[in-house]
Amino acid sequence: MGSLESKQQLMEKIRCGDMTKPTSGFAPGFTQANLVILKKELAFEFLLFCQRNPKSCPVLDVSEVGSPVARTFAPESDLRTDIPKYHIYKHGEFVEETTDISEHWESDMVAFLLGCSFTFEEALIANGIGIRHNEEGCNVPMYRANIETEPAGIFHGQMIVSMRPIPRDQVVRAVQVTSRFPDVHGAPVHIGDPAFIGISNMAKPDFGQAVSINDGEDPVFWACGVTPQSVAMASKPELMITHAPGHMFITDVKNETLGVF
Amino acid sequence: MGSLESKQQLMEKIRCGDMTKPTSGFAPGFTQANLVILKKELAFEFLLFCQRNPKSCPVLDVSEVGSPVARTFAPESDLRTDIPKYHIYKHGEFVEETTDISEHWESDMVAFLLGCSFTFEEALIANGIGIRHNEEGCNVPMYRANIETEPAGIFHGQMIVSMRPIPRDQVVRAVQVTSRFPDVHGAPVHIGDPAFIGISNMAKPDFGQAVSINDGEDPVFWACGVTPQSVAMASKPELMITHAPGHMFITDVKNETLGVF
Repeated sequence: MGSLESKQQLMEKIRCGDMTKPTSGFAPGFTQANLVILKKELAFEFLLFCQRNPKSCPVLDVSEVGSPVARTFAPESDLRTDIPKYHIYKHGEFVEETTDISEHWESDMVAFLLGCSFTFEEALIANGIGIRHNEEGCNVPMYRANIETEPAGIFHGQMIVSMRPIPRDQVVRAVQVTSRFPDVHGAPVHIGDPAFIGISNMAKPDFGQAVSINDGEDPVFWACGVTPQSVAMASKPELMITHAPGHMFITDVKNETLGVF
Repeated sequence: MGSLESKQQLMEKIRCGDMTKPTSGFAPGFTQANLVILKKELAFEFLLFCQRNPKSCPVLDVSEVGSPVARTFAPESDLRTDIPKYHIYKHGEFVEETTDISEHWESDMVAFLLGCSFTFEEALIANGIGIRHNEEGCNVPMYRANIETEPAGIFHGQMIVSMRPIPRDQVVRAVQVTSRFPDVHGAPVHIGDPAFIGISNMAKPDFGQAVSINDGEDPVFWACGVTPQSVAMASKPELMITHAPGHMFITDVKNETLGVF
């Protein structure tokens, strides 16, 4: 994977429904993104929510109303078919998992692509900082923190954070490396004591799986892309479509181009 | 100026209409902002335009619909009175200059505060890089570049850029210093030959005044906060209210807190 040709082949397989696996590790180097599709009547409030909460909801791209194309990050895309698996929510309830949302698409829908931590994890690995949940073969542990998001319209709620254990002598470097990527959650929101942000039991994440924290490591917490989905679901919009967790949209943009310095 | 008390006194004078001068040099250290007020029906498209054009339209704050308060950057503010001078545009035409827009405010209006180059100019000066238009006592020269903005809805047009001559041995530092402040236009969009971005006559800026460029200096161009006003005006909304050029909104937020690293 990784060459332009193999990325094209991968995207074709995803488009026909032949690749329905989580996308972690596929098309290395290319930016992967969270998807949120809402009706236009909620688009302003959701975009405003993202503007007010840039760490948890960094907006990469917004489609034209009614257009299923990721206009800047993948101009040849069709967001109705180009993701391995979708989740459909009605009035905040999960109703269906599918590999193709063409029949659900309506002319007043807007698709939002939000940054995903895969981008900064690649940068951490390139800097010699291991990613524990990769090493342990599970999903990143995510917790509901007592950090309130800035509300906008109907959207409000607490921030979801992801946790990665980092050796103490690499914590500063981890802050530096992830600060370079504000469009994919950027610098951590907290280092150390989980109780400080209202997390009482590290062994029981609200999403994903728990990972081991070794002696000499601090838990480091980043704002998580599950926040906008969690917040949007809590607001019970009539219809919301997202990617299935871990089944991201693979854009045409290289991770490194999102680095700001 | 600069202490909290004197800033409060200044804001009271502005609120009663006793201070109607350009705000450059007032309340040093505090972030100043561009104002754009539109009706809610255009709010999504304008916010989307800003999201797609973060260098020219960095959004600092967006009011609630109908609320004239800068909710994050100045929670005690009243944006109908707290700016020295406003410009009112109807269908894209300038119709009135006033010190108070209370009688024009409507319950479906949304106020956008956008970053202003005063913040990064302060950082350049702190780094020993002089600001020519300050030295020559005039407004910064601004030019229409042949760089197309990313359109959103009715909003589209060319980027307006501001120009500051920088000694060649300080150009790299000027890039570094302004890169720290993405919320106030960030790094330059071009260094050197004006023709490369479609500027044919440096002596005739489209806005502001020309300044001298000395031997050993390069013209350096930044995306300019006049872009959103220019673009919004060109789209001829029924009603748009802005600050009068140079008469900015002074927020409660310190410039340095906008630095990202």
